[in-house]
Amino acid sequence: MKESLKILKIGGNVINDPIALEEFLFHFAQIPSKKILIHGGGKKASEMAEELGLEPKMVNGRRITDLATLEIVTMVYAGLLNKNIVANLQKNQCNAIGLSGADGNCILAHKRVVKEIDYGFAGDVDSIDVKTISALLNSQLTPVFCAITHDKNGQLLNTNADTIASELSIGLSEKYDVELIYCFEKNGVLRDVNDNHSVIEKINKPYFEALKKDRIVAEGMLPKLENCFAALEKGVQKVTIGSPNVFYETKQKCTTLIL
Amino acid sequence: MKESLKILKIGGNVINDPIALEEFLFHFAQIPSKKILIHGGGKKASEMAEELGLEPKMVNGRRITDLATLEIVTMVYAGLLNKNIVANLQKNQCNAIGLSGADGNCILAHKRVVKEIDYGFAGDVDSIDVKTISALLNSQLTPVFCAITHDKNGQLLNTNADTIASELSIGLSEKYDVELIYCFEKNGVLRDVNDNHSVIEKINKPYFEALKKDRIVAEGMLPKLENCFAALEKGVQKVTIGSPNVFYETKQKCTTLIL
Repeated sequence: MKESLKILKIGGNVINDPIALEEFLFHFAQIPSKKILIHGGGKKASEMAEELGLEPKMVNGRRITDLATLEIVTMVYAGLLNKNIVANLQKNQCNAIGLSGADGNCILAHKRVVKEIDYGFAGDVDSIDVKTISALLNSQLTPVFCAITHDKNGQLLNTNADTIASELSIGLSEKYDVELIYCFEKNGVLRDVNDNHSVIEKINKPYFEALKKDRIVAEGMLPKLENCFAALEKGVQKVTIGSPNVFYETKQKCTTLIL
Repeated sequence: MKESLKILKIGGNVINDPIALEEFLFHFAQIPSKKILIHGGGKKASEMAEELGLEPKMVNGRRITDLATLEIVTMVYAGLLNKNIVANLQKNQCNAIGLSGADGNCILAHKRVVKEIDYGFAGDVDSIDVKTISALLNSQLTPVFCAITHDKNGQLLNTNADTIASELSIGLSEKYDVELIYCFEKNGVLRDVNDNHSVIEKINKPYFEALKKDRIVAEGMLPKLENCFAALEKGVQKVTIGSPNVFYETKQKCTTLIL
């Protein structure tokens, strides 16, 4: 039997709220098994861009990472957020080590290929260095990844944090029994999108197909769940979607995805 | 006999010049032994502070790290500079891992005690985690440290990069045969401060005392050399001071300090 590894991803709703972040990190530090944290960006990067007088570049409603934006996200994600999260975990006796994908060549990506839209310095993940990440875990270190990767040709790349969480989980499931936990602003997949109590607690693949057909799962939730099932199909043991307290509040409802 | 470890420190004169930095990193990547890089800040943090409309806080001619300044140096040193250096080393086939002192609890410090001046969030180093740094080195990783430390109580601290280099060298000399190389804007300790060719090639402790007495070593060079001799007395094998090409240009003159 493989050793268990929990991979948690937090986004803006935790990052932007100092009290929520403090509470989350306190509980994350207590997880007894090996663990990895992936954090998104939150609003600080946009605030910084605004302070520096940069206009957000959007094409067809999607954000473009130009060079100035890449500098800002590298500063905010890999510097300010990542190091403050690490320092907070250290305070809680968790021996965290903050990383971008360039560090230890942990996450290799390539600049997104230009088709209709040039997304600029946005990276799509190619591979995970399981050996280096395992070596860190075996040294009793807890990796904390920000959403910056590199192309091994000197270029840093802005990469979706959900994708990083899923790619890390898939890669590491070769050596570990991986549970991937997405913490976000809702309690899970909701039967009624306006009722946070209407959590669907278990979804397997056939049920997911039915939910898609009935349009209960739609819009933003659809690609998120497609990604989760892809991870399950590639070896991840279990995927949980819920609020940031899902992994320590036993009464907290959430959605568990299984094949 | 202990395994050899080279610890190099670069400052603003390399960081601020993209071509010099590129050349330095290319050669650093080729060093065959285990190695560690420590980088200072350069002018980018001051530029960023200016763009954000922050006035540098000075007391008695010394810079004070207030909270806003700490945010900026954390972004610039640990984010922008550190990750770009790492990505560049990765391009050169050097498996670099970028770290602050908080990462892996590698460098523990305390907020400088307030006597006459409150330096704000400036950190003085307490200890080095030799075990974690050795584990990284043994995983064939090359640590790249920026000049940010932490107090294990959740607080990041701005710390002098020369001091970090010297404390790392002292701590690691317990396990390694350490050579500490300070790269700076001059060719070494100069007999005539205005003549970059007047390098004094070897200084031992008695000669250092004589140079102090004759006021050939004075001002900024004095505390730098006091630090170097302190490192030698605490187990560091050799300290070299010179220009950034000193470790690969065999004809480049430099100053070597020995006991």
